[in-house]
Amino acid sequence: MRTWSFAKGHGTMNDFVLLKDRYGMLNPSPEDVRFLCDRRAGVGGDGLIRAVKAEGIPDWDGAKDIWYMDYRNSDGSPAETCGNGLRVFVRWLVDENLVSGTVIQVATRAGLRKAVVLRDGRISVTMGVPSWDSRVVGIDLCGKKWTGRKVDVGNPHLVVHVEDPTELDALDLCGPLVYDAEVFPEGTNVEFVTASTENKLKMRVYERGSGETMSCGTGVVAASTDARALSKRHHDTFQVDVPGGTLKVTFDDEGEASMTGPAVIVARGEVTLPDG
Amino acid sequence: MRTWSFAKGHGTMNDFVLLKDRYGMLNPSPEDVRFLCDRRAGVGGDGLIRAVKAEGIPDWDGAKDIWYMDYRNSDGSPAETCGNGLRVFVRWLVDENLVSGTVIQVATRAGLRKAVVLRDGRISVTMGVPSWDSRVVGIDLCGKKWTGRKVDVGNPHLVVHVEDPTELDALDLCGPLVYDAEVFPEGTNVEFVTASTENKLKMRVYERGSGETMSCGTGVVAASTDARALSKRHHDTFQVDVPGGTLKVTFDDEGEASMTGPAVIVARGEVTLPDG
Repeated sequence: MRTWSFAKGHGTMNDFVLLKDRYGMLNPSPEDVRFLCDRRAGVGGDGLIRAVKAEGIPDWDGAKDIWYMDYRNSDGSPAETCGNGLRVFVRWLVDENLVSGTVIQVATRAGLRKAVVLRDGRISVTMGVPSWDSRVVGIDLCGKKWTGRKVDVGNPHLVVHVEDPTELDALDLCGPLVYDAEVFPEGTNVEFVTASTENKLKMRVYERGSGETMSCGTGVVAASTDARALSKRHHDTFQVDVPGGTLKVTFDDEGEASMTGPAVIVARGEVTLPDG
Repeated sequence: MRTWSFAKGHGTMNDFVLLKDRYGMLNPSPEDVRFLCDRRAGVGGDGLIRAVKAEGIPDWDGAKDIWYMDYRNSDGSPAETCGNGLRVFVRWLVDENLVSGTVIQVATRAGLRKAVVLRDGRISVTMGVPSWDSRVVGIDLCGKKWTGRKVDVGNPHLVVHVEDPTELDALDLCGPLVYDAEVFPEGTNVEFVTASTENKLKMRVYERGSGETMSCGTGVVAASTDARALSKRHHDTFQVDVPGGTLKVTFDDEGEASMTGPAVIVARGEVTLPDG
């Protein structure tokens, strides 16, 4: 039996188990990750975030004195990054006095990310420069066909427009998701979006490997990128309502997206893992 | 903001948030219970169990120096008791050194319960004397009609026999559950049971107010009571496999049921509640 310290937190109801592992000693196996994320047998979360000092990450060639966010999906697989997870990670680093100041650099598999801790408690994180593809492509979800446009936010998205907000509310986002592997070689997340104004969006998301979730940070950025590309006004600021809350997306002059939203640490404690 | 100590544990994947509240100072509101049981915003559990010394419970007229199990459903409502919860409660009392010995008396809203801590870590708990009704009655679940017999284990159950184990595995236990309120004035839980031998059962359960769950302690007792009443051999021991694990049910000479199974404490920590 192994006992590890953990924290649990969420951003717009996307929740995470957090492990502090400064010197990279814990080395959780995929089984450990699945156990920790198991909502009944373990602690429960959409993913696991392990904080390791960047100096201990062989693949990281940036600043050594910052924290590296080792993100794992609940199925145990590693992922590049996670927008909501990044806000929760930074909230936790701040609460635990592991960083100082209000501008925090974070190393991720997707590269360097910058976070700003706002006075109202929200956290803003950079999300990279999304790339938008103007071609209309299709998928099949739950036996129904949809078309939309691809956005790459470090991970793949398809943004589908739904005209009627009541139709958005009524959608049954069960699986399976069927797609053309030549169009989506790594699969895709799918965002269903209604715009009440050009830059005020309402979104539901079907996540690759998870099904419908309450929120998806990169999905919110994908929806904003698509709305921005398709509108004539080329807005720099978007409000996106997801089932788990409200997020703000802004674009700077270089086209880099930032996402701003809440992040809360709910619990801290010790978890006992079965022998691995 | 309030910060409370908590533990989290499960028995056959039925999981609970545990609060130690010796002198009854915490007094969690229904909102607090819903928050603590929320799997994303809070800690997450099928229910909350608060440990209070029985001397502080005005309605309790039994022994004063034992622990009272204040059980709450995840929707915030109080419940009489919970079989899987009782095992987890006792496991936690033992682990926290709040009781001594291997035979533990517990006060519940359903009366006194006795637990025995076995050497292999499993815990056996008394479940009262179930009452079985020989009349065949029907319900409608998910648009399909089923018939079975009622068993009262302090809460209402309908036990439905499914001949073919492959049919049991394939059942789609979605709602809604439709029943005659004259037959089931307090609603009902529904157990779907296949017997591989007279006293070796496999069960899936649709819980009142929850839908399908991985395990239901009183449901396992109800299924055993029904199998016992319908068999000629009148077995005293039953093995019941549920999706979350395996439970054993025994009946003593007075017809009182005991249930034996695993109980695990997974995590301990501090949780921060929003202002109530």
